[in-house]
Amino acid sequence: MNIKGTAAGGGNALLIPMTEFSMGLTGDINDVMNAHNLAMVALTGRMQHERNYSDEQLRRLTGMRRLDIDPCQVEMGWVIDFCAQALRSVIIGMGARSDGYMMQSKFGIAVSSELMAILAIVRDLADLRKRLGEITMAYDKRGNPITTADLEVAGAMCAWMRNAINPTLCSTAEYQPVMVHAGPFANIAVGQSSIIGDRVGLKLFDYHVTESGFAADIGFEKFWNVKCRLSGLQPHVSVLTTTIRSLKMHGGGSKVVAGLALPEEYRRENLKLVEAGLANLLHHIGVIRKSGINPVVCINRFTTDTADEIRVVRRAAEKAGARCALSDHWGKGGEGALELADAVTDATRDKVEFRYLYPMEMKLRDRVELIAKEVYGAGGVAWAPEAETKLRSLESDARYDEYSTMMVKTHLSLSHDPALKGAPKNWILPIRDVLVYSGAKFLCPCAGSISLMPGTASNPGFRRVDVDVQTGKVTGLF
Amino acid sequence: MNIKGTAAGGGNALLIPMTEFSMGLTGDINDVMNAHNLAMVALTGRMQHERNYSDEQLRRLTGMRRLDIDPCQVEMGWVIDFCAQALRSVIIGMGARSDGYMMQSKFGIAVSSELMAILAIVRDLADLRKRLGEITMAYDKRGNPITTADLEVAGAMCAWMRNAINPTLCSTAEYQPVMVHAGPFANIAVGQSSIIGDRVGLKLFDYHVTESGFAADIGFEKFWNVKCRLSGLQPHVSVLTTTIRSLKMHGGGSKVVAGLALPEEYRRENLKLVEAGLANLLHHIGVIRKSGINPVVCINRFTTDTADEIRVVRRAAEKAGARCALSDHWGKGGEGALELADAVTDATRDKVEFRYLYPMEMKLRDRVELIAKEVYGAGGVAWAPEAETKLRSLESDARYDEYSTMMVKTHLSLSHDPALKGAPKNWILPIRDVLVYSGAKFLCPCAGSISLMPGTASNPGFRRVDVDVQTGKVTGLF
Amino acid sequence: MNIKGTAAGGGNALLIPMTEFSMGLTGDINDVMNAHNLAMVALTGRMQHERNYSDEQLRRLTGMRRLDIDPCQVEMGWVIDFCAQALRSVIIGMGARSDGYMMQSKFGIAVSSELMAILAIVRDLADLRKRLGEITMAYDKRGNPITTADLEVAGAMCAWMRNAINPTLCSTAEYQPVMVHAGPFANIAVGQSSIIGDRVGLKLFDYHVTESGFAADIGFEKFWNVKCRLSGLQPHVSVLTTTIRSLKMHGGGSKVVAGLALPEEYRRENLKLVEAGLANLLHHIGVIRKSGINPVVCINRFTTDTADEIRVVRRAAEKAGARCALSDHWGKGGEGALELADAVTDATRDKVEFRYLYPMEMKLRDRVELIAKEVYGAGGVAWAPEAETKLRSLESDARYDEYSTMMVKTHLSLSHDPALKGAPKNWILPIRDVLVYSGAKFLCPCAGSISLMPGTASNPGFRRVDVDVQTGKVTGLF
Amino acid sequence: MNIKGTAAGGGNALLIPMTEFSMGLTGDINDVMNAHNLAMVALTGRMQHERNYSDEQLRRLTGMRRLDIDPCQVEMGWVIDFCAQALRSVIIGMGARSDGYMMQSKFGIAVSSELMAILAIVRDLADLRKRLGEITMAYDKRGNPITTADLEVAGAMCAWMRNAINPTLCSTAEYQPVMVHAGPFANIAVGQSSIIGDRVGLKLFDYHVTESGFAADIGFEKFWNVKCRLSGLQPHVSVLTTTIRSLKMHGGGSKVVAGLALPEEYRRENLKLVEAGLANLLHHIGVIRKSGINPVVCINRFTTDTADEIRVVRRAAEKAGARCALSDHWGKGGEGALELADAVTDATRDKVEFRYLYPMEMKLRDRVELIAKEVYGAGGVAWAPEAETKLRSLESDARYDEYSTMMVKTHLSLSHDPALKGAPKNWILPIRDVLVYSGAKFLCPCAGSISLMPGTASNPGFRRVDVDVQTGKVTGLF
Repeated sequence: MNIKGTAAGGGNALLIPMTEFSMGLTGDINDVMNAHNLAMVALTGRMQHERNYSDEQLRRLTGMRRLDIDPCQVEMGWVIDFCAQALRSVIIGMGARSDGYMMQSKFGIAVSSELMAILAIVRDLADLRKRLGEITMAYDKRGNPITTADLEVAGAMCAWMRNAINPTLCSTAEYQPVMVHAGPFANIAVGQSSIIGDRVGLKLFDYHVTESGFAADIGFEKFWNVKCRLSGLQPHVSVLTTTIRSLKMHGGGSKVVAGLALPEEYRRENLKLVEAGLANLLHHIGVIRKSGINPVVCINRFTTDTADEIRVVRRAAEKAGARCALSDHWGKGGEGALELADAVTDATRDKVEFRYLYPMEMKLRDRVELIAKEVYGAGGVAWAPEAETKLRSLESDARYDEYSTMMVKTHLSLSHDPALKGAPKNWILPIRDVLVYSGAKFLCPCAGSISLMPGTASNPGFRRVDVDVQTGKVTGLF
Repeated sequence: MNIKGTAAGGGNALLIPMTEFSMGLTGDINDVMNAHNLAMVALTGRMQHERNYSDEQLRRLTGMRRLDIDPCQVEMGWVIDFCAQALRSVIIGMGARSDGYMMQSKFGIAVSSELMAILAIVRDLADLRKRLGEITMAYDKRGNPITTADLEVAGAMCAWMRNAINPTLCSTAEYQPVMVHAGPFANIAVGQSSIIGDRVGLKLFDYHVTESGFAADIGFEKFWNVKCRLSGLQPHVSVLTTTIRSLKMHGGGSKVVAGLALPEEYRRENLKLVEAGLANLLHHIGVIRKSGINPVVCINRFTTDTADEIRVVRRAAEKAGARCALSDHWGKGGEGALELADAVTDATRDKVEFRYLYPMEMKLRDRVELIAKEVYGAGGVAWAPEAETKLRSLESDARYDEYSTMMVKTHLSLSHDPALKGAPKNWILPIRDVLVYSGAKFLCPCAGSISLMPGTASNPGFRRVDVDVQTGKVTGLF
Repeated sequence: MNIKGTAAGGGNALLIPMTEFSMGLTGDINDVMNAHNLAMVALTGRMQHERNYSDEQLRRLTGMRRLDIDPCQVEMGWVIDFCAQALRSVIIGMGARSDGYMMQSKFGIAVSSELMAILAIVRDLADLRKRLGEITMAYDKRGNPITTADLEVAGAMCAWMRNAINPTLCSTAEYQPVMVHAGPFANIAVGQSSIIGDRVGLKLFDYHVTESGFAADIGFEKFWNVKCRLSGLQPHVSVLTTTIRSLKMHGGGSKVVAGLALPEEYRRENLKLVEAGLANLLHHIGVIRKSGINPVVCINRFTTDTADEIRVVRRAAEKAGARCALSDHWGKGGEGALELADAVTDATRDKVEFRYLYPMEMKLRDRVELIAKEVYGAGGVAWAPEAETKLRSLESDARYDEYSTMMVKTHLSLSHDPALKGAPKNWILPIRDVLVYSGAKFLCPCAGSISLMPGTASNPGFRRVDVDVQTGKVTGLF
Repeated sequence: MNIKGTAAGGGNALLIPMTEFSMGLTGDINDVMNAHNLAMVALTGRMQHERNYSDEQLRRLTGMRRLDIDPCQVEMGWVIDFCAQALRSVIIGMGARSDGYMMQSKFGIAVSSELMAILAIVRDLADLRKRLGEITMAYDKRGNPITTADLEVAGAMCAWMRNAINPTLCSTAEYQPVMVHAGPFANIAVGQSSIIGDRVGLKLFDYHVTESGFAADIGFEKFWNVKCRLSGLQPHVSVLTTTIRSLKMHGGGSKVVAGLALPEEYRRENLKLVEAGLANLLHHIGVIRKSGINPVVCINRFTTDTADEIRVVRRAAEKAGARCALSDHWGKGGEGALELADAVTDATRDKVEFRYLYPMEMKLRDRVELIAKEVYGAGGVAWAPEAETKLRSLESDARYDEYSTMMVKTHLSLSHDPALKGAPKNWILPIRDVLVYSGAKFLCPCAGSISLMPGTASNPGFRRVDVDVQTGKVTGLF
């Protein structure tokens, strides 16, 4: 018996050690980036040519009608596969008549592309081709959406992504097979391995494990109510991973700052902090239970964990009715994960009555309120005036009834405020905006601001990466 | 016996039909793009952090010293693999303290990257690693160059390019092997297939054919005086390709405008225009002769060519002492090229006394004058004041003596003025600037303005590209 | 007996007909604009020179130390005396080393300058000179304020404003004397005629009338708690001007759109709308009463007003204990205002016990809550997270205890929402930010967004302005 | 007998000491600035509204037709009355639909406005009104000029300038009357006091002296061939002012850098440098002679001048046939200028046969060549390709035959190269562009680049300006 799986992130059928994983090996991200940026080339070129030419010239030269795109309502930006904060907010199209249409624009990181979100959920090439034409890039001056199909670029985008639709078969360091496919930014998208990857995995392996980014409030909620609904597949087990350190942080440990030494409480035994942090773990267990599944808690072992700390967690998880397993795969590889494997295979024998949190008939406002209260533990939801306006317009348009509800919330707290640790009560979830992803068919209610472009730190990792010119091996990646 | 070859443009060792050539198949362009943009991430991030932090904070957080980069002297831009004229001139870094350093910036097309130029000329991975650290990205406030090594990013750039250093083995539509490797923008770089590709080809095949972009004034001059000098290799034959249409255009035919119907003189027999255009062909034959090689003129047949038109060209070429062959590979594949193949193999038996146009000891000003007069047919060279200043500074620094002289000139005329057809006489070549590519070790004297980012036409090709969702085949590429 | 007055807006001692009022006649606005923009020249020049020079060069060339201004924390923008919405958000400093420091910047309309706010409240030239050096233009990288004094530009600014400190004596169309002095944007400043103008008026005339922009919630509240406190002067009477049209609008009349025909209910008798709108008038009467003054309600007559409509208003005002007078100065000049004049002079004989709404000892948070509830009729105040942070920091710094509280709120509603007419109840006033005007010594809590630059309409008034070239008279101003 | 005069720079009829001259006292610059910026408000507002509205909406809301302005061909920028180099190149109109039309723009210094050029040459208010409507602000997408009249803003601009058309009567420190009127930037405009001022002066005074900016190559050439032609007036005398220091500089003295100590040769007697510099003075004498006038050379005395140095200059000037006078007005006021006054009144008795350098019938190319050779001493003229194209188009349009030829050239050398001192020979004047000022009716051939916005130095003068708060006097201006 083998446990195999897919992880979010990649492309073609090659057996490649996971150590090269960080250098874009599957090629999928490049394909997404190129297809996405081609759409932007189409958009900006069209705006330029429409500005420069009269209706008659346009018709004669190109056979095209005027789309009359509103430069103040361009929703889509460019993507690049780096944390390039300097490109977050840019001005493009400076220069002469032939140097583009001047406007404000933006770059996101490639994985935040709506195309990556689409890749994670498509059924097949025909579905991909169709969705690639339904992406809303901008609005015209009368407020109508301008799609990739309107720009006649969806076919060429699909050409760039024709190979990316195939999962890439990689392996772990111990040569267990792993399929890598899709890595959509959980900030605004589903944040899961692809449905295609899962389908392939389910046909090939005895057990299929699939990854779901972030915790039960973000990752599992989207897996549960969005991905399972889109795929029609249902899980037997859910593994909830925790660490002693994260529990200490939720229990009131001092702030951890990248680059500075780890505070002492994280390196020494501190049962009080662990205990205080258990409220967070128990909340996540409760969330998963609402789907009809009883989770397996996996304690991801660190060398600084003490036996008493582990015991406290195990006891609490078990008292809550969950299975719990210590896993030392970091230290011992697959052998270190045997306890977890046993717990998981045991759990697959449970009877599961999987049920969604809400039916598709439920309206957007009610869905958000339900998620806020039942999954995040909020007391209520407050819609900002602009979001309220958008909400009403979206609820009144039947087209959006079938769209998935894709919450945008920080993963650093159960609430919208990264500073609130543990399991906060009596707070109101503020919704500031609702994004429309019409290719992926997502409505994304945003609790707080969203940045689609992370930043590079003052002491960036690339300083330590190099190539051994004798062997061609990359060094310093980990 | 087989004629094999390398063409500018590509990556890894896969046998792929040339029909997919246009979709970035080798992956090399993506690698170049990512490695190049990573350098820009390093530069812009460093500028941001140096602006935000005091010397003391910088040292404590990162161990780095202040580079003090002058935002008004950043030479390098970003790259993207599309004709995105809207990105030619941009402003980046708008927003708050953590949103980058605000400055003017630019995007070029990926193949115009100095990294692609380097890829075409490197010897091996060690040479690549070294050159990737020597690229001048900007200048500090005292005027000293800031290199990729100063930014500690060269190792990570090399990691991104570790696979791109290997040529990709593709095939023609008739499954003849072709290596695809490197496609440096001949506008500012050498514009040839890679030296590594040539070395591999020379070991594998009976005959090795290598591509050299643009005509004898641009492509062959750089092949002759730069690439051969860097590789230490020497050609036996040079094929000079011409068409009846291009000769008509050089003979005074009316202007050809993309999108409009081809003027009649190009579709009907017109011996007068062909004869008038021969001056241009003869000039190119003469240029190649100066290297010690007698070229083979290849007439690339079009269906509208008439027997008399072809006879006129053949007679002129032969009168000038060159071999001449008609080739109908477009119409008949390899079989259509047999006459050319015979002429080329015949020519390989000639005794060649290959000699460079100038020795490396010659100073930059003299090299440019020699190229202008001997290769372009100019009467002289005029240096603009700014270029004159740069010239003097470069000539006085021994470091630049070993740099290649990489002319930047339009390929649409022997002169710098695209409107001057035929073989113009008595004109002065204006030099407006000299670019320094310190990783490739090129000095690029610029005759006219250079754009590193082409534009997308008003009726772009992507409109016609699509994917057959049943077969996965890309349609509309050709 | 004469009623004289000052109106917000202007400069030197010249007798000028009010008809030329709109063309910047007093010169004060130009002086404010030039002094203000000079400060920006000083700031941007300093940033450029500090960027270009080392500490040592800076000291040698200029004797200046490095201020180390944070380009992301420049608070001040430029001003211009037009509604130039295209200048609201700009990027400046593009180009080479000598073309400024590149950053985002903004333009406001000249009257929105902090200098105009200062002009309205200064005591004398020495006070002006002192305050002109205390304006916060930006913050340095450690968060310390950079003032006009730090930039050594306050003296030169004062030189530009040395004449503007004198009120301009103008006249009405009937040659009654009017002093014009200062016109600070009530959006963020006190929005009143100058204190100097009032002081001069009180010495010259039997009765002195001073203008206070917007209604009792904005204009009177600032006159009452800020201007009177700063001047030490107290009013005898307060005139509350109303119109039948505005009451109809507050009573639920349909929306009035500039450029479109006035809806019928505003042109015909409609007692129901007038009655419904009285709640708003009565609220304003109540606010003024809280200061110890019983207001005189002035009905500013329109030709469409009917006798019954006027009777309804008069009855309601008188029932509320206020005097009420109909005034037809628009139709009949001074004679038309005699009833109002009688009511006002009568009111001056009332005994007034003038009292401020809050003592200076009251903390900012409490002041805002008191104003919101007592003056606007709100149920409470909600501080946004950023505003809350600023509030705490300001309350903890004793320096700000003496600052005036200068509310920023729309004048189109008693609430912050321009759509809420009448006298709304049970609403929460949201505070989004607190601006610090350290020259004027104002803390400005902002309820809603503030634009300091109005826009020019699609059918702008300048189209109708011209000059009669025979007489030199300006036409089309009114 | 009195010598009176006008100086370039000012407004209304007030007697004001020259010491306040620098603070914009006449108000004319403010009027020019406001009228100019109003035009830009009209342009940018129109572009915004045309972008936002359909043809039908535009017609209904405003009754206006679509002008279809090309944002890449906006010629006019904004003005401000400071050396604000940070505003040289800007981006405006960022933000939402109502925040303007986004484009690149620029600011010049107020005196560089075409309105100031117009003010210097208009005949009367009717002429001003007419010209204010003829200014080309931009081009539409078909290449047709968009004027201030097209934008319906000329009337309102004229309203702002209705007072500026009157000269301001000021006085010298000795209370001699001086009219101040207009100060057009000689870089691109006529650079002279106004024609209206001259006309008034000629009626009021026995002798009228008018100022002409820069030397005989710039100031006098424009006075001679442009201003005199436009006014119909002819001078009796021309005063050519020189200093010992400037002659030393033209004779090869070392470079003078603002902020650093004056090199020794300028502070001590150095006859050799003076003699070497005389070539420049003699060239200027020769230029003036070509107009039919024999100039009076005025040596503007410095305290460091020696008697021998003065003698050398006087001898050379007289040998060339010119009158020469030493003037010590700096040291002794009017009394110090008596020798000059005598020389000038004596010269007025000469018979003058005033003749223009070229007739209006001469074509632009020939005019420029004549000026280059006869006035600057050039060997010829070279037109850049873009300028050549413009030249041909302008010469072929009869409308431009009546336009004045307004040369744009540095005043730091007789040539276009500021570093060439003395009287250089055998050089070619390069023409890079031709500006069209259709309100002033100027064609401005540009020899070299032109900046319409000077920069503020690293040690700016405003640091030393202040106000004495007791007296209101401005200090530190001189």
